[in-house]
Amino acid sequence: MKYKISNNVIRRLPRYIRFLELLEASGAVRVSSKELGELMGLTASQIRQDFNCFGGFGQQGYGYNVQQLSEAMSEIMGISHERKAIVIGAGNLGKALIANFKFKKYGYTLTAAFDVCPELVGKKFSRTPVYHIDKLEEYLMKNKVDVAALTLPGETASGVVTRLINSGVPGIWNFTRLEFPATFGPARVENVHFADSLLVLSYALKEKEKEEGGEA
Amino acid sequence: MKYKISNNVIRRLPRYIRFLELLEASGAVRVSSKELGELMGLTASQIRQDFNCFGGFGQQGYGYNVQQLSEAMSEIMGISHERKAIVIGAGNLGKALIANFKFKKYGYTLTAAFDVCPELVGKKFSRTPVYHIDKLEEYLMKNKVDVAALTLPGETASGVVTRLINSGVPGIWNFTRLEFPATFGPARVENVHFADSLLVLSYALKEKEKEEGGEA
Repeated sequence: MKYKISNNVIRRLPRYIRFLELLEASGAVRVSSKELGELMGLTASQIRQDFNCFGGFGQQGYGYNVQQLSEAMSEIMGISHERKAIVIGAGNLGKALIANFKFKKYGYTLTAAFDVCPELVGKKFSRTPVYHIDKLEEYLMKNKVDVAALTLPGETASGVVTRLINSGVPGIWNFTRLEFPATFGPARVENVHFADSLLVLSYALKEKEKEEGGEA
Repeated sequence: MKYKISNNVIRRLPRYIRFLELLEASGAVRVSSKELGELMGLTASQIRQDFNCFGGFGQQGYGYNVQQLSEAMSEIMGISHERKAIVIGAGNLGKALIANFKFKKYGYTLTAAFDVCPELVGKKFSRTPVYHIDKLEEYLMKNKVDVAALTLPGETASGVVTRLINSGVPGIWNFTRLEFPATFGPARVENVHFADSLLVLSYALKEKEKEEGGEA
């Protein structure tokens, strides 16, 4: 199968996957674009348009089979692939990923974490060993890693990214304040910026206040 | 001033703000849409289109004044407003926000954290006191809170959101696996789903592999 799907649709797919999981968990077998739209705050036609990008799935008068749709989307996003991840920086955010993020669910095995802190190096968190960052290249020589999550201070991130790329790590999941381009040399990058969503929330609050209090 | 800006543009503004800050920090006084586009991986016309949504800013042949543009965008997003935030859940992710997130920079003062864990309640992290979640209503009666960051387990999130809304908290910054609608009764919600960005990264890796290895 060949998919050529726009970036915007790709960015919407994880959200579809989440809602379809909820539907599956609630025992739903099929769903119409209207029902799914109501659940997700989208119009039925937006949903049909998105789904048409990768061949439809739906049947006139039936709607979508929840499980099939969910599986097809997971396949498009590559969840079925077995991938390995590491976490660089075992501070609070790194620990949050190590302890709470469901890597398995998204097709990843978390194999190691790296840090510089003597109190962390040599320990295990939720069965994930923490190695000294000096051992990064040695580790990457012996172990294939698909994605490195960057949960280290921004100041040190650039150097680490260069090392990861030089060692052939293809995926960077960046939580630092730096922003790397989506295609960064041979690597692919996703930047997660907490501040962006807080600012969007601030904007929504400002608009709400305007509506309620009249023009400020 | 009246802004009526599309949601998509609003979602792009925080990214502009970040890049303009970088430019300011590097000493740049003005920037053309072409230069900014190259920096951000956008076309000059995309940038001009976005900026036209809120009245332009640019001058023909001059480009944009970096500081003015940055300030105007910060104002649009409501960064100048003085807001109060609390964190619900002082586990690893909550601690990461408390210790590392620059609330001040985005117009917020972090005033308190809440948890149920006896080892955390009564302590302070980076000068932020942790109270028992049972004290939430009492706290909210005495203290105006604009935004509550939810860094607690998903199972308990719904109940806490109801309590927050009943106590008049207008903004929910949700890091749990649940998704709340952007407009949830009187509240406004931003959902941060780490998994979404990992899935988009997985997709990019799959596409990269296809390009390099031919059709799998």
